This record gives sequence, structure tokens and C-alpha cells, in this order.
Amino acid sequence: MTRVLGIDPGLVNLGWGVIEADRGRMRHVANGTCHSGKGPLAERLKALYAQLSEVIERHAPETAAVEQTFVNKDAVATLKLGQARAVALLVPAQFGLFVGEYAPNKVKKCVVGVGHADKTQVQHMVKMQLPGVTFASADAADALAIAICHAFYMPSETPMVGGAA
Amino acid sequence: MTRVLGIDPGLVNLGWGVIEADRGRMRHVANGTCHSGKGPLAERLKALYAQLSEVIERHAPETAAVEQTFVNKDAVATLKLGQARAVALLVPAQFGLFVGEYAPNKVKKCVVGVGHADKTQVQHMVKMQLPGVTFASADAADALAIAICHAFYMPSETPMVGGAA
Repeated sequence: MTRVLGIDPGLVNLGWGVIEADRGRMRHVANGTCHSGKGPLAERLKALYAQLSEVIERHAPETAAVEQTFVNKDAVATLKLGQARAVALLVPAQFGLFVGEYAPNKVKKCVVGVGHADKTQVQHMVKMQLPGVTFASADAADALAIAICHAFYMPSETPMVGGAA
Repeated sequence: MTRVLGIDPGLVNLGWGVIEADRGRMRHVANGTCHSGKGPLAERLKALYAQLSEVIERHAPETAAVEQTFVNKDAVATLKLGQARAVALLVPAQFGLFVGEYAPNKVKKCVVGVGHADKTQVQHMVKMQLPGVTFASADAADALAIAICHAFYMPSETPMVGGAA
């Protein structure tokens, strides 16, 4: 039985989800959303860092995964996402966790079966695989999908040191 | 007399410089470069975080500033820069420091007098203002220029809580 943390990075809303996985059997533990609030960027990143640290302290995951996103909208949006992703990668690493990275299409393919599924389909399949779950937010639902993907792809034996992406 | 930390963010090489400033008079304290090394991104960010924390512990700056950069090269480069910037903003904030942000043109204008100065001019003027300085790297020189800019623009009275950018 392995506790897996999935993180959907975003500067305004950072989704997270924790599941327990054991050879293909999965169970929902918790999900939620971290908010960076308003104010200077440094303070917003500090707030995300503190909230995500608390999630790890409370739910004690053994491994983590973050979505590997490339926004092409514009440079400002991409820079913001990069800053949020840094916190998402950094915090679990600070707790000594392995952090996997998965492209969005890989997550969708793993959860739904096709790489171009829409959000409704992804949420439906996450609910099928984690009976009884309710989503704190759309970002938290995405984070659970990332956790399911990581549970599927992560090396089955500890210690997990290889590249799981 | 205020100790000012300037940071030039970069994922491979992150430049830093510490100066002491007192009403326009400045003195060089130290400068250097943090390296993220190779390996998974989460571990690289963790390495930068640890090295920058050590810089702050050793040189005890009272305020900090980071360059506000927008790379337009491509989304991948911008995302990487965003991730490095997050560490540059986050670490001083964790130590309770105010973190100013300055656009590259503002830094150049402050140090050289014109917004489109080249690197050689910037380095020359940094040397003029910090006699006896030797640069650990080009990134460290840029970081000292950012510190000089922050020393010029930061609110003169503590506590520093306004937007200095």
C-alpha cells in the first residue's frame, strides 16, 4: 500500500490529491486546493509552499507527481505557471519524496484510455476509480488523476529512484 | 547601513550579490553563483533552495531583489526561468525579507544611466560603484547590479512593506 500525492500546479489555485494504491487497487484519501491569495509574488509563493507542506505533513504521502505542463498562451502566463510548478516540485522534494512528472496526455491516456479526453471524461473516470470521492475543485480532480497515473507508472519496488516520467 | 541581496535567477546558474548601502554610499560584501547540477528538476530546485538559503544565513541581508525577466525565446525556456525565479523569490521571503522586483531595463538605467546598455557597460559601472570587486560569474555581476538598483529604489525607512518595484 503506497500513499501517492498528485499535484496540479497553478499560481492562483494549486490542486492536490492523495490516494492509496496497492497493485492496481486504489482508495481516495483526501483532495483540496491551495490558494496563493493576493500580494507580492514572493509572498504568494511562500503561501503555496506553506500550504503544500501542511498537506504533506497531514497526509504523509510516500511519493508524488506533478503535471508537466507547457502553456503556449503567452510568456507571462508560462512564467507564472513555471513559478507555481517550482513550488509543486520543490515541496515534496524537501520532504525527501520522489517526484514524478507526467505530460497531460499521458495522464489522460492512463485514466481515460485516450490522450485527448475532455475534463468531464477525466473527472468521470477518476470517480469510477475512487468510489465516493467528491472534488474540492476542478484542479483537485486533475491532481487525483495525476496521482492515479503515478500509481500506475511508478516503480513497484521501493526505493523509488528511477525516472518515472 | 542596509545589507542588500540581489539575485539574477537562472535554473543552471543563479547569480547572487550582497552589498552594504548607506544613503548612496555602497560597499561590496560578497557575490557568487548557485548551481543546480544535473538530475530530476525537483532535486535541482531543492539544490538551488539549499544554496540560496546558505547565502542568506551566511551574509544576513536585510532586504532582497530579483530581476523581473520575460524570456520570449520559447515556452520551455520561459517555464525553466519561471521555476528558477520562484526559488529566487521564495527563499528570501522564507527568511522574512522584503523582495523587490525590477525589470532589466530599470536595473540598467539605474546602474549605467540608459536602459539598453550592454553587459560590458553594466559590469564596468558595477566595478566603479563597488571598488575592488571581482565577479564570480557574469550572473553574479548582474546580481550585484540588481542589488545596486534595489539600494537606490528601496524605501529609505524600515519596515519595508511597500511595493519597491
